[in-house]
Amino acid sequence: METLLLSKHNLQTLVARVGLSTFMSEMIDRLTHTLINFDEVHTIVPQRSGFNYQVPYPGVLEWMTVMQAGKSAHVKVVGYNPSNPSLRNLPTILSCISVYDIQSGHLIGIADGTFLTALRTGAASAIASRVLALPESKTLGLIGCGAQAITQLHALSLVFPLKKIRIFDINDAIAGDFLKRAAWLKLNIEPAPLPELVAESDIICTATSVEVGRGPVFADRGLRPWVHINAVGSDFPGKTEVPYTVLQRSLVCPDFTLQAVVEGECQQLKNSEIGPTLSEVVKKADKFSSACHRMTVFDSTGYALEDQAAMELLLNYAHEFGIGNFVQIECTTGEVHDPYAFVRSSDSSETDMPQTEKVVAWAD
Amino acid sequence: METLLLSKHNLQTLVARVGLSTFMSEMIDRLTHTLINFDEVHTIVPQRSGFNYQVPYPGVLEWMTVMQAGKSAHVKVVGYNPSNPSLRNLPTILSCISVYDIQSGHLIGIADGTFLTALRTGAASAIASRVLALPESKTLGLIGCGAQAITQLHALSLVFPLKKIRIFDINDAIAGDFLKRAAWLKLNIEPAPLPELVAESDIICTATSVEVGRGPVFADRGLRPWVHINAVGSDFPGKTEVPYTVLQRSLVCPDFTLQAVVEGECQQLKNSEIGPTLSEVVKKADKFSSACHRMTVFDSTGYALEDQAAMELLLNYAHEFGIGNFVQIECTTGEVHDPYAFVRSSDSSETDMPQTEKVVAWAD
Repeated sequence: METLLLSKHNLQTLVARVGLSTFMSEMIDRLTHTLINFDEVHTIVPQRSGFNYQVPYPGVLEWMTVMQAGKSAHVKVVGYNPSNPSLRNLPTILSCISVYDIQSGHLIGIADGTFLTALRTGAASAIASRVLALPESKTLGLIGCGAQAITQLHALSLVFPLKKIRIFDINDAIAGDFLKRAAWLKLNIEPAPLPELVAESDIICTATSVEVGRGPVFADRGLRPWVHINAVGSDFPGKTEVPYTVLQRSLVCPDFTLQAVVEGECQQLKNSEIGPTLSEVVKKADKFSSACHRMTVFDSTGYALEDQAAMELLLNYAHEFGIGNFVQIECTTGEVHDPYAFVRSSDSSETDMPQTEKVVAWAD
Repeated sequence: METLLLSKHNLQTLVARVGLSTFMSEMIDRLTHTLINFDEVHTIVPQRSGFNYQVPYPGVLEWMTVMQAGKSAHVKVVGYNPSNPSLRNLPTILSCISVYDIQSGHLIGIADGTFLTALRTGAASAIASRVLALPESKTLGLIGCGAQAITQLHALSLVFPLKKIRIFDINDAIAGDFLKRAAWLKLNIEPAPLPELVAESDIICTATSVEVGRGPVFADRGLRPWVHINAVGSDFPGKTEVPYTVLQRSLVCPDFTLQAVVEGECQQLKNSEIGPTLSEVVKKADKFSSACHRMTVFDSTGYALEDQAAMELLLNYAHEFGIGNFVQIECTTGEVHDPYAFVRSSDSSETDMPQTEKVVAWAD
């Protein structure tokens, strides 16, 4: 009964070996495949649930779960604490993902979910944009230059011939810093006043920590009639980023409708105003091919199916490269009716009971 | 950002060092303290949720969560798969528990929950029995001799002067095997026909895997008028162990009322027939001191607060003895706005970014 533990160092080794852009490309491909093959009979995705709190600082700890019937379940526990950067020198989002064998309940693996969350959020926007934005989109506008911005840009740069990226953050220093963070992409990135950014962009990504009730984060003025918006930041009741009038004129595609009407841009809409899900759009890309000529919004609240795809990709690489540590966590023995048996076995010489956990750092 | 990982081997070392009976005694004391101090403002315990499935075999994977406001959150993921013993040579219940810093979302620690679940379930029955059963109870009846039976017996033997233990299982071999599993307790244990067991016992524990709709597991005949019943097995809609007529004549105390009416013996009762919770009874032990002379039932469905107390006890011991491994799982760096920064740092010489995870096996 071993659990594959991927440490931060393991992920460093693994991602360095794969290469960030290959990793993101594979993430986009895998998630596309997952969305195309998604069906609600074999894949159960409950709405996320969690603890919301205001004291001492506002935040959320929530669990996002998904089950592949008869196979596995992924549980991502994710903290969203906007006070993290300033108070704790930590990212707003911190997360771990664990995978369970659904038939036995065994913990198969555990790894960081912070990196994977950023990665899959970028990939989801790229997939939505590939279906809903103009294929020849050249100008990208990023509103909000925090932790989610780089993976939005990275993923979109892999599927569009971007010539110009305009960025904006309410904090100039964070926008300035983004130029350094994104330098390795060798793209043409420039800070811009918000109205200019909005007017020039073929694709816009909003990824802000705007407070509840303080949205939208840009005005409905001068938008290109074919603009596609990836609305990434809204993930909490009352938190929205996109003006209502923009949503009204757009085809709005949520990742997960039940969740989007509670936490996403869809909070602002009646059910009749909400379009097909990302999965439906990707499955029927032909049917939606003309949508690129009109305004469209991907309402990205974060979807456990995306986390599953990301974790599967990571574990596949780990197995392929032999990276990771196998640890025995669960206190099981052959004596299935005795929860105390593992204690006695520690000073016995039973060969089926290793004296120490097997910690194998394969190639890593 | 280090996470304390307690491996199976760590738990073996730790429990061997503490001693099983000291561990259980401390568990009983700590859980009593937790129940006395429980208030719904500072401690949030949602109902558990999870995946129920029938294919290929019936089972559940669920998450039990509890938050200490402003401090920590415990997440226990637990599989309940009655096919585990026969098909996989694994216990029915398999589990891991993780603890998070609620302010940052950081994963503080992770450990097995299989042992802790058995331990805290035993402790809860001992606490309920200490308030609701006759103090001079001498005969204990165990119905169901699976994995939960030993911790029921162990915990009760620490708080009652037990002279005779009668046991029953629908599978004779499992009852016979229990004599071996419990031999170290040096108690007077005898298999008994169910009617005899029921008629002789001052305290009864039901801990069975009876199928949905197949309860009760004993008949309402010959019970002692002061019997206290710890109904441990019922934890699923439709699964019950205690005859309705027994519940009707008894003071029925659930661990968690909202859950017990869905999954516990309280499914059989109207709200007006349900008594105070275990926490309420323990807080006001004086008020309920006469309850030991009448029939009482502890409806034990399993409570995240118990898991929290068990995990806290375990982590306290781990810190006291310096047992465990610190691993870096979350891919954070000082660059809080860049989820890719950890990758670059793997081949840099930044001193704040260790090249390998620090794996310290202190005294262990």
